Amino acid sequence: ISANHIKLPNTATEADCIASLNGDPAVHGFIVQLPLDSDKPINTEKITNAVAPEKDVDGLSSINAGKLSRGDLGDCFIPCTPKGCMELIRQTGKEVGKADILVVAAGKAEMVKGEWIKPGAIVIDCGINHVPGAWVMYKAWGCVYLYINAVANDIEISQSCIPKPIDQVAREVGLFPDEVELYGQTKAKVHLSALERLKSQPDGKYIVVTGITPTPLGEGKSTTTVGLVQALGAHLHQNVFACVRQPSQGPTFGIKGGAAGGGYCQVIPMDEFNLHLTGDIHAITAANNLVAAAVDARIFHELTQTDQALYSRLVPSVNGVRKFSDIQIRRLQKLGINKTDPATLTKEEVNFFVRLDIDPSTITWQRVLDTNDRFLRKITIGQSPTEKGFSRTAQFDITVSSEIMAVLALSDGLDDMKKRLGRMVVASSKRGEPVTADDLGVTGALAVLMKDAVKPNLMQTLEGTPVFVHAGPFANIAHGNSSVLADKIALKLVGKEGFVVTEAGFGADIGMEKFFNIKCRYSGLRPHVVVLVATVRALKMHGGGPAVTAGVPLPKEYMEENLQLLAKGCSNLNKQIQNARMFGVPVVVAVNAFKTDTKAELALVVQLAKEAGAFDAVECTHWAEGGKGAVALAQAVQRASQTPSNFRFLYNLELPVIDKIRLIAKQIYGASDIELLPEAQEKVAMYTKQGFGNLPICMAKTHLSLSHDPEQKGAPTGFILPIRDIRASVGAGFLYPLVGTMSTMPGLPTRPCFYDIDLDTASGEVKGLF
Amino acid sequence: ISANHIKLPNTATEADCIASLNGDPAVHGFIVQLPLDSDKPINTEKITNAVAPEKDVDGLSSINAGKLSRGDLGDCFIPCTPKGCMELIRQTGKEVGKADILVVAAGKAEMVKGEWIKPGAIVIDCGINHVPGAWVMYKAWGCVYLYINAVANDIEISQSCIPKPIDQVAREVGLFPDEVELYGQTKAKVHLSALERLKSQPDGKYIVVTGITPTPLGEGKSTTTVGLVQALGAHLHQNVFACVRQPSQGPTFGIKGGAAGGGYCQVIPMDEFNLHLTGDIHAITAANNLVAAAVDARIFHELTQTDQALYSRLVPSVNGVRKFSDIQIRRLQKLGINKTDPATLTKEEVNFFVRLDIDPSTITWQRVLDTNDRFLRKITIGQSPTEKGFSRTAQFDITVSSEIMAVLALSDGLDDMKKRLGRMVVASSKRGEPVTADDLGVTGALAVLMKDAVKPNLMQTLEGTPVFVHAGPFANIAHGNSSVLADKIALKLVGKEGFVVTEAGFGADIGMEKFFNIKCRYSGLRPHVVVLVATVRALKMHGGGPAVTAGVPLPKEYMEENLQLLAKGCSNLNKQIQNARMFGVPVVVAVNAFKTDTKAELALVVQLAKEAGAFDAVECTHWAEGGKGAVALAQAVQRASQTPSNFRFLYNLELPVIDKIRLIAKQIYGASDIELLPEAQEKVAMYTKQGFGNLPICMAKTHLSLSHDPEQKGAPTGFILPIRDIRASVGAGFLYPLVGTMSTMPGLPTRPCFYDIDLDTASGEVKGLF
Repeated sequence: ISANHIKLPNTATEADCIASLNGDPAVHGFIVQLPLDSDKPINTEKITNAVAPEKDVDGLSSINAGKLSRGDLGDCFIPCTPKGCMELIRQTGKEVGKADILVVAAGKAEMVKGEWIKPGAIVIDCGINHVPGAWVMYKAWGCVYLYINAVANDIEISQSCIPKPIDQVAREVGLFPDEVELYGQTKAKVHLSALERLKSQPDGKYIVVTGITPTPLGEGKSTTTVGLVQALGAHLHQNVFACVRQPSQGPTFGIKGGAAGGGYCQVIPMDEFNLHLTGDIHAITAANNLVAAAVDARIFHELTQTDQALYSRLVPSVNGVRKFSDIQIRRLQKLGINKTDPATLTKEEVNFFVRLDIDPSTITWQRVLDTNDRFLRKITIGQSPTEKGFSRTAQFDITVSSEIMAVLALSDGLDDMKKRLGRMVVASSKRGEPVTADDLGVTGALAVLMKDAVKPNLMQTLEGTPVFVHAGPFANIAHGNSSVLADKIALKLVGKEGFVVTEAGFGADIGMEKFFNIKCRYSGLRPHVVVLVATVRALKMHGGGPAVTAGVPLPKEYMEENLQLLAKGCSNLNKQIQNARMFGVPVVVAVNAFKTDTKAELALVVQLAKEAGAFDAVECTHWAEGGKGAVALAQAVQRASQTPSNFRFLYNLELPVIDKIRLIAKQIYGASDIELLPEAQEKVAMYTKQGFGNLPICMAKTHLSLSHDPEQKGAPTGFILPIRDIRASVGAGFLYPLVGTMSTMPGLPTRPCFYDIDLDTASGEVKGLF
Repeated sequence: ISANHIKLPNTATEADCIASLNGDPAVHGFIVQLPLDSDKPINTEKITNAVAPEKDVDGLSSINAGKLSRGDLGDCFIPCTPKGCMELIRQTGKEVGKADILVVAAGKAEMVKGEWIKPGAIVIDCGINHVPGAWVMYKAWGCVYLYINAVANDIEISQSCIPKPIDQVAREVGLFPDEVELYGQTKAKVHLSALERLKSQPDGKYIVVTGITPTPLGEGKSTTTVGLVQALGAHLHQNVFACVRQPSQGPTFGIKGGAAGGGYCQVIPMDEFNLHLTGDIHAITAANNLVAAAVDARIFHELTQTDQALYSRLVPSVNGVRKFSDIQIRRLQKLGINKTDPATLTKEEVNFFVRLDIDPSTITWQRVLDTNDRFLRKITIGQSPTEKGFSRTAQFDITVSSEIMAVLALSDGLDDMKKRLGRMVVASSKRGEPVTADDLGVTGALAVLMKDAVKPNLMQTLEGTPVFVHAGPFANIAHGNSSVLADKIALKLVGKEGFVVTEAGFGADIGMEKFFNIKCRYSGLRPHVVVLVATVRALKMHGGGPAVTAGVPLPKEYMEENLQLLAKGCSNLNKQIQNARMFGVPVVVAVNAFKTDTKAELALVVQLAKEAGAFDAVECTHWAEGGKGAVALAQAVQRASQTPSNFRFLYNLELPVIDKIRLIAKQIYGASDIELLPEAQEKVAMYTKQGFGNLPICMAKTHLSLSHDPEQKGAPTGFILPIRDIRASVGAGFLYPLVGTMSTMPGLPTRPCFYDIDLDTASGEVKGLF
């Protein structure tokens, strides 16, 4: 310990940190932060035992929820950041920062100015996990759990339960007050600084929930995700986080209804969850449509102006000075023009610079709305006289299908998100080069619009366990998984012995395959267990049962015992178990029981699942009972997470595009081969030439069959998978082959859900959401 | 005081309330709420003086920011609501609610169950203003004010100032913790329950800021609004609220830049103010477009189905039972069909019920986006094969022009908003009857989407005075004023001696006229003072100076002294002063000084304004100096607010539509008459027939001239005002005659603002907003 700033080695432990301070005669004393009231006894003991008795201990004992109180123990404090320190000074009026010694978070030492410490004081820059406050991460959270009352439908169940104030949930899971932004009483955004603070903590166990090939009614993946965390948390008292996708608001008013889980396994309040939440999807609508408006406006301005007129407008003289903006310098560099003075560009360089020269027939960027509006599926735009006849055909998609949603889910931080946003390709130029958001000059504006959306949203389940709700990319054309950032923060917060349960959209052939090959590849996270949800209903359908259609009563095959159909349909379960095992991860099958299922039926599924190689298979009744009904599942997951996982990807990125697609089709779907239609062949050539051939593959295939044909149930083999076309989400970072036609804009039926949705204006309660 | 529940008469005072408790032998003691730390001495004294010494005083002394601490004084508490009580129990672990006596807010007594009180305890339901906590409303707030540092441009000024935590601002102005929903650290939504709590409080002084006819650059109305409240608050220490409109996000990325005021008079943080805020505009986009999607989907379903098919879908059999939803019963009643059993409708009644029979050529409801997207000004929708050829021409407008924004601004509460949403007319049927949102079945869903948007947003100025930011209807076609609810809550919070400064869009001929005749008519509020903002620049333009154009350097007439042009141009100032005086309200002219203005010029404007009948006229330098530069203005406003105001409307609603339009044109604009073009004549007949003839008038006229011709400066007379067409915003509650063509969708220029906007991903700071 020499001068003002000291950096301990990253391998140092908390004990090392305190020992080195104990041993230094220059250290007069300690200020130590104890972030949680509930942890006071433990921390105080640890610190008072560790600190040498001759040292002066100075500061405050307790911070929570933005309010300080003087403690009677310890009397010690470490501000994590200068901001935290300033907040203390503001609240207490005491200059606690003016201390003899200040232990700060890793890398923050340079931010600690003289104003925080006495002249000549010592600042120790220890690894963030060596701050004693971080000790609490491994202990059980000591959550308050909520009790379930039996009532009627989903929104009534949700409303019957009074949620804990969300700042309490945040405190319980070890978040610091300045890492949390409240959005009312039941939702909060969590700062990415929490990830930075906890970066040296080991991760918890990472569990992904997926399913067999479903019926159109869904087989209860979200419900099982919530049920599993309620069981692990409220019943087995493990630290556990659920990470789920934010549902699309538009379909809530169409056919679909809400998506907060169901029965006694819900994210609450379900109306907040299903509606605006904290505005992330709205931010995506705004960002997406700014790009779209910029594309058409740019084409219009290029068509109606000379090079010189464009140049003098793009680089205007302001108070007699012409200057490129930062984003224009980037474009010049991309064009190979290493100049910074606008006066020095040649005529040809000006031409290159001002003309993106977008080929309108190649525009892949569409406008979006979070509304089920079928009349916007195909439209003609630009028909006002002000657009001088430059009209073209376009379309609106549902917002969750925007590439920006896929970017949000895969981003690793603010900087990574901004880079991905800038890389997004909107069209090709007439010379065949990709035109990006950065070329349009819009990257910074997109990052500004998305700066809050990038923070995960904290909510809770019906039984009071924490949930991150963050991102919800459209599984039809994107990866359909919640955000990397939510998973990462949750894995740190639960600690080494804790669990993070994340959900992958659709069946295991789609959501799980993309979870592994795309999401885990980008995040670097490795899963410990796959939970595969199956229902007797869906398995009977796969065994040859009659069609299951939304809104139509179920045929009798599904209401009565039928072991033959069921046994036959387990071919699909078997194949999906193999699919998961192909990645080297143990599989626990959750048989989501309905009241019409018989004992023999449930037992048969459990037996066949085990025979197919599942680590375990368990009957679950969480829909009707909450976490209690998933305790056996939770225990199976705990056991499975102790077994060695040997995770591997299905393909290397360096393989040619066609080979990657073929590998997925043959290995995961059971196809004998693939067939590329002409448009797809052209795109393979184009994307490879443009340098995008090494991206992972995100198949856009029906979720209702392992094959491309929704009618083919069970585990079909021997089919040729047709690839109609290929698109690229370069910013998000994948190519998506289109197998058949994907609808990207739902419509409103004759009698939409909204007929039943109402607001009680006296109580403010929402009625009729389900 | 007899049984468990006691209701004091509404005329009872606080002293009565305590006296009656003192006199009752059944009362063992008091629990009294002291909501604000800062008020402890005052309240404690009042209470300890008033309460009989033999009474037991029980409870806690202080609540703030969701954290309680035991007090050493008073030791007394009244929970306002059962929820507040529960919160106390949760936080303290002490069952404070289990008291001998519980004094609750008016009308809440029935909500207090046995669980809150000891068996046999007494509950007193006193008028809400008699709760001792409400005493604090009249005292000076004791705000903390922020100090200004001199720096460069608007966003740097905004970022140089560290805002107070918004929960502190809320406490300072007397809001209770459970009336405030935090949205991060710098924004909060305020519950409408605050208005209910304070309903018997007298209102403060109500000041409206308007302007002369502006140049296209604007004359600083927002800046003056903020400067005036900074002066009244931070310099004269009055209780004062600014109520401003939320700016449209789309144009922030186009030409316009931000709208938070400017210089040293801003709402901060200006990036939060200009971007998503708390999502109100996004909620409007969602609600507006749900209506639009419902219109087209309904037309489509009616065109492709028989009456019977429609009926069996609209009233489906669920578990064998067919039932009308509430909103369908309303439609039946509107149609004069008093039946509730779906089986009993005749064929003709079914036909009436299922067919809205919308005439597509009469659809006035457009889709909206908060994006400058010129290519959506005129589009063709419904061109996908799934819509079977039923395409039509449509358009997107900017979101702030949605009728739902006008509804939000004029609503008096949740119930009033829902009723207005249901009344919105989207088209006519082929029989010429208005088709409403309620007919579409969408009212409840709209109310649900708007339930949070209806709560005003609390922010602060650069000098730390409170601001409500709420609603921002497009002044071109709507009334252009911020919300009635924000004004009403602010008027209660400032107390009898305080001030609420609200801004009206455009010049006095438009924004102020609509403020009086529409907003004040619906709100019942009566203004005390008009502040009329004038600049030397605009007055010279009115005197015949050369055109002022955005982005082009100002001609020399505006940079040098020119008393002739200025004197001539004061004709406009004179006319706008007369316009304000016509409503019986005193006018204070704020001469917003620029650095190029000479002393003689400024003196001349002040002199001519006073000669024209202004109560006072004052030179202001708030842009450069903050509130300090508007102290003289603030003092003039204080004096003016003491004079008797004799407010009157310009017209009675019962007058024929044409007469109301003519009155505005002649009295306010100076026209000699109006001329109704054929479309307008038809609409007058139609709306009168449909029963909308008694609505107030909301003129859609250029703001750049008192006449309809933007080139006519000064105070033109003798012109005939042409009325091209008339539209109706029935839900918001006005007819809007179109004088000329109004653009409702801005575009992106060749070099939009977004080229300069960026996010520093390390600090999270927004760059380049202005």
